[in-house]
Amino acid sequence: MKTYILDNEIKIFSYGEPIETEGTIKLNRKETFFEDELNVKYTNDKSSFSFKLREEDLVYGFGANLGGINKKGRTYKSYCTDDASHTEDKNALYGAHNFFMIIGDTCKGYFIDFPSEILYDVGFTDNSIFSVDIDGEDFEVYIIEGENPQVIISKFHQIIGTPYIPPKWGFGYFQSRWGYKNENEVREIYEKFKENEIPIDGIFLDLDYMEDFKDFTVSEERFGNLKELSSDLKNQGVHLVPIIDAGVKIEEGYDIYEEGIKGDHFCKDENGKPYIAAVWPGKVHFPDFMKEDTQRWFGLKYKVLTDLGIEGFWNDMNEPAIFYDETALNDAIESAYLSKGENLDAHTYFKLKDKFTQLSNKDQYYQSFYHELKEGKKKNHDVHNLYGYYMTKAAYIGLETLLERKRFLLISRASIIGMHKYAGIWTGDNSSWWSHLELNVRMMPSLNMCGFYYTGADTGGFGGECTGELLVRWMQFSVFTPLLRNHSAIGSKVQEPFSFEENTKERSKELIKSRYMLIPYLYSEYMKSISEKKLMFSPLTFEFPDKKLSDIEDQLILGSIMLTPVYFKNKKGRYVTLPQDMLEISFSENNIKTNLKREGIHYMDYSLDELKFYLRENSMLPYVEPSQNVKSMNIETLKVIGYIKDKARYDLYDDDGISLDIKEKYCTHIKVEYQNTDWVIDVKNTNPNIKEIEFYLYDSEGSLSQRTIKIK
Amino acid sequence: MKTYILDNEIKIFSYGEPIETEGTIKLNRKETFFEDELNVKYTNDKSSFSFKLREEDLVYGFGANLGGINKKGRTYKSYCTDDASHTEDKNALYGAHNFFMIIGDTCKGYFIDFPSEILYDVGFTDNSIFSVDIDGEDFEVYIIEGENPQVIISKFHQIIGTPYIPPKWGFGYFQSRWGYKNENEVREIYEKFKENEIPIDGIFLDLDYMEDFKDFTVSEERFGNLKELSSDLKNQGVHLVPIIDAGVKIEEGYDIYEEGIKGDHFCKDENGKPYIAAVWPGKVHFPDFMKEDTQRWFGLKYKVLTDLGIEGFWNDMNEPAIFYDETALNDAIESAYLSKGENLDAHTYFKLKDKFTQLSNKDQYYQSFYHELKEGKKKNHDVHNLYGYYMTKAAYIGLETLLERKRFLLISRASIIGMHKYAGIWTGDNSSWWSHLELNVRMMPSLNMCGFYYTGADTGGFGGECTGELLVRWMQFSVFTPLLRNHSAIGSKVQEPFSFEENTKERSKELIKSRYMLIPYLYSEYMKSISEKKLMFSPLTFEFPDKKLSDIEDQLILGSIMLTPVYFKNKKGRYVTLPQDMLEISFSENNIKTNLKREGIHYMDYSLDELKFYLRENSMLPYVEPSQNVKSMNIETLKVIGYIKDKARYDLYDDDGISLDIKEKYCTHIKVEYQNTDWVIDVKNTNPNIKEIEFYLYDSEGSLSQRTIKIK
Repeated sequence: MKTYILDNEIKIFSYGEPIETEGTIKLNRKETFFEDELNVKYTNDKSSFSFKLREEDLVYGFGANLGGINKKGRTYKSYCTDDASHTEDKNALYGAHNFFMIIGDTCKGYFIDFPSEILYDVGFTDNSIFSVDIDGEDFEVYIIEGENPQVIISKFHQIIGTPYIPPKWGFGYFQSRWGYKNENEVREIYEKFKENEIPIDGIFLDLDYMEDFKDFTVSEERFGNLKELSSDLKNQGVHLVPIIDAGVKIEEGYDIYEEGIKGDHFCKDENGKPYIAAVWPGKVHFPDFMKEDTQRWFGLKYKVLTDLGIEGFWNDMNEPAIFYDETALNDAIESAYLSKGENLDAHTYFKLKDKFTQLSNKDQYYQSFYHELKEGKKKNHDVHNLYGYYMTKAAYIGLETLLERKRFLLISRASIIGMHKYAGIWTGDNSSWWSHLELNVRMMPSLNMCGFYYTGADTGGFGGECTGELLVRWMQFSVFTPLLRNHSAIGSKVQEPFSFEENTKERSKELIKSRYMLIPYLYSEYMKSISEKKLMFSPLTFEFPDKKLSDIEDQLILGSIMLTPVYFKNKKGRYVTLPQDMLEISFSENNIKTNLKREGIHYMDYSLDELKFYLRENSMLPYVEPSQNVKSMNIETLKVIGYIKDKARYDLYDDDGISLDIKEKYCTHIKVEYQNTDWVIDVKNTNPNIKEIEFYLYDSEGSLSQRTIKIK
Repeated sequence: MKTYILDNEIKIFSYGEPIETEGTIKLNRKETFFEDELNVKYTNDKSSFSFKLREEDLVYGFGANLGGINKKGRTYKSYCTDDASHTEDKNALYGAHNFFMIIGDTCKGYFIDFPSEILYDVGFTDNSIFSVDIDGEDFEVYIIEGENPQVIISKFHQIIGTPYIPPKWGFGYFQSRWGYKNENEVREIYEKFKENEIPIDGIFLDLDYMEDFKDFTVSEERFGNLKELSSDLKNQGVHLVPIIDAGVKIEEGYDIYEEGIKGDHFCKDENGKPYIAAVWPGKVHFPDFMKEDTQRWFGLKYKVLTDLGIEGFWNDMNEPAIFYDETALNDAIESAYLSKGENLDAHTYFKLKDKFTQLSNKDQYYQSFYHELKEGKKKNHDVHNLYGYYMTKAAYIGLETLLERKRFLLISRASIIGMHKYAGIWTGDNSSWWSHLELNVRMMPSLNMCGFYYTGADTGGFGGECTGELLVRWMQFSVFTPLLRNHSAIGSKVQEPFSFEENTKERSKELIKSRYMLIPYLYSEYMKSISEKKLMFSPLTFEFPDKKLSDIEDQLILGSIMLTPVYFKNKKGRYVTLPQDMLEISFSENNIKTNLKREGIHYMDYSLDELKFYLRENSMLPYVEPSQNVKSMNIETLKVIGYIKDKARYDLYDDDGISLDIKEKYCTHIKVEYQNTDWVIDVKNTNPNIKEIEFYLYDSEGSLSQRTIKIK
């Protein structure tokens, strides 16, 4: 074991010979000596350590996983996994986010830099023990101390680097569906948005646009004029965002396949031949994204689509997901054949059935193909969690070049901490379940803790049947998440806002308009959160440190406001705990209703016809009139609602929203103070697009004053 | 269509030629003429009708199904189904409970008497439409009017008859696990209860006790001395409750199989040969329980076990569940064989995989075997929901004879309204999920509405891994459900109270002791509820009619008390709405803590170390000291806590708890009034076992007075 210390006093414990993961940015580490405070134990090439847990301790972290904000009482597996059934007994989703904090008498954060499987048992087997089992002996643990979770997070974010910044249009509304059959259908979908005057900034293209599921191909038959479609839509402010999968179809004459073979870009099996797995197109090879050469090659392939005017992508199936390989499929087929004519009892029947039901993503697949790293040849299993990362980094470096340092939209399904620098993530293939809306709410702070800010769930749910009520309730939350995408699976009920009852359509439309009114605020909060290294979505206790509030995981603080989503069906409202007096805002284009609510516990009405949230004391919320898309957004007249007992300050951040290298950062510093029975307003503005600011100021008793300030 | 009216003014609409279901008891129906207010439509041998739904309407009913107390926003399928994955998108569980109420401007209840599939879409597809699709043209609909839900329920229960009454020991604590390997293990389990002084009244025996999954056999090797075991345990007040499955193994020399063939007791395929399906033992025949002859034959077979001293049974797999039949299995095997060496793409791969994953309980199975009814030969599909009912009725009539009108424990997995007269139900193969604890809470009132009172969930969850915290939180609710059974599946974490951390064991023990303290009260509430035809577990709004309270589905009224279970992990408490001042009671053997809480909304602490509930205004709760089992329960000293502003009354019902024909019913009428600064207590008692009553009376300000009354 070696130990190091960083400038910000983070300790590093380095065990064995860790593989370089790019989980942290280049750090000026100084070797020094510490005792192994983790007391790591080794058995059979595995390592483990544990912590004592007391009933009052809180555990945070683990990013994209199930469970609440407090992680106690479950297990979590860090092993990027494609499992579309997110039931509450699962412990692995698509990401591997090895950062957690234990908050009790002391506050400590831990980041385990390791690319293979880790199992966390957070008081699950025994409520007093938090154990960590690492499938290897070569890893680093960063131990971060701080007086509270925010300090720890801030220090942690210093070492992992600044998160990905999407183009500003990435904050628009996105429609998606696996199953848009052809260009015409995409045009029709857009026309319906226009006809219904529902704002939109992009339409995602799922597998449907490809020829036989082949990466970097476009179906001539169904999407033969993609360039024209892309250009027509972009003229109206709408972007197409196609999907790219990890696996490359094995097919003679298919350029990507042939170049991959020629350039030696594919992962190998134990005999050194390109490894064959099967995914959507049937048999595929997996590019070995761990090789820089392959990253450059694959990254520049996005040119096929950027040449059509495309500026956004989603990288999918990059855990990598595997439907089957030949060995396992043959074994299942063989078992089936041997069962012919047999009287199968429960034992033999389930044994046979399991051969088929458990064909996908078997451990043995990840043990049977190899990557070439600078550290040498490694089994996928041993570096498993880096695969989606390097695919996405490949896309990033390709797009950076292809789009000449213009920003692009990039999200990935699989992820590891480190990937947050290059892309956002969506939370994977969820379902139209109320519990998945709840999961979305509770996951946001954990995602932020792990560096993922550009993120959101498939609103309305990907699999299964969404009701109008669920869509509206989900939208009431998703209008606040940086990535706002309604996406659904082929075969499920169609899920565009206008595919539901009239009242659902109208409600969705109003909610999307409200989203556009809030984009300047959300963009500002996003940019400030990542630059100030703080959460964009905070648990209530992070902002109002009162132990009693740690039970409350369904109220989130987002800058000036508190969100209180409803995530149960058939509800007219919900319980809300106000840790201080707040201004209740029912927000919409034509009628913003406010209501001063006093500190305490309430059952608050929250109907399907509104967007409700709470403005904190001495806080301000800027917004604008809604627009049809981000491109046509107009912030000449900025509006500001304030709830101010004595004084408040808001700094509205803005920039061109397009350049990767941000040259001009605009800031509008707004200070409002209540002095001698009147309001004193002080604005310092560098944003050339703002011409005036309309203030709606509520004092401690909820009385409203209006003021307008012209900007010189 | 014919129409009838009943004495209690229930209207009956009779369409086609309904099959006799025994869903209602013999009714004195008078033919009369009504317009078809349902406006039934017919297409392709199916019938449908619908209701308009307004946002403010409430829909109740559907018994054992998913969703909340208010049924809006989902679909429900009445088709007894064995599907162990109770995810929130499912719409059919083990029961078919076709009673529902629509409560809005008017209140109406509906009972559809029909034994095959019905699909309900309660504002799911369109939030303003509640549609009912009946897979047939022969059915009856009972329409029940009343000024409120309770009146409707009471009228409905008049026509379906009195629910099953278990022996009083059925209110004890039951331990169960699929996987108790042999007698020794069962003895050891019991010994651990004794050693830990945890009360217990029964141990359930799952498939393990049988020889090769054969009904009415006992493994010589593993349970060779079952009679001795049964007798030893019964001497200590502990009953064995073995499982019986629906399918009879096909095996030459196996008496049940041979008698079944000889007596022509099995369901036939379309060629008139006994239908072959496969379940646990491999290939089986299904007894045709619809034939009275077969009922008598099968019912008396329980003698094999009653002769060993057994007095309780659980009928399982009686939807009937089918793992596969030869045709479907061969088809799957054939597909597998044809896939050999093929490059399966997504389409062909999932097609093959689905052949295996979807082998269980295929629709086609239920279309391919037949029953003989007095109405003639019918496909199972057409009378599907009666199968579990008639199996259980068979057991009932057998046991009635075998046990000479002594009460017995009988629960079934499959059910239909009508079966409530002969047995209880457990809520099926749930999982160790927090959402299933929540489901359990919300399902109780619906089950009562449909006539099922002797019911409860597998506490701790059947499948999956239970944590100590989940077990304790579940127990905090289950100690109130008539059926209290901790049951878990083979392969899952062991789940007896002493299999967890020390504090979980201690907490469970205290909770089980509290259960035994409350048995006189729970038994009394049970018996009064069924005789007075009211719910035992009521939604809050049923007792406190305030529209605002209809959102609250997680507070239930059980007679004098209100239950407020915690069903989220990592919580120190929960929100509680008190519709009136109530006495908070933290209940336990050695320290009953009380706290007067005022009407309003609170966040109440509810720790893992207590059993908390609320005593209503002007109400009393009787209890006794804990005992090791029901047999040794002592009610000589009855204790009563009262929270009385002016006056209160409680009638404690009791009887011998054993006889099927209850001869002596005991009642202790307790009246307490606060008059001229003092308490006036009036007790009229016919219960010879009660010698004194200790009163703990809290007045409107929460001041306590103690009184003891000797009973002459």
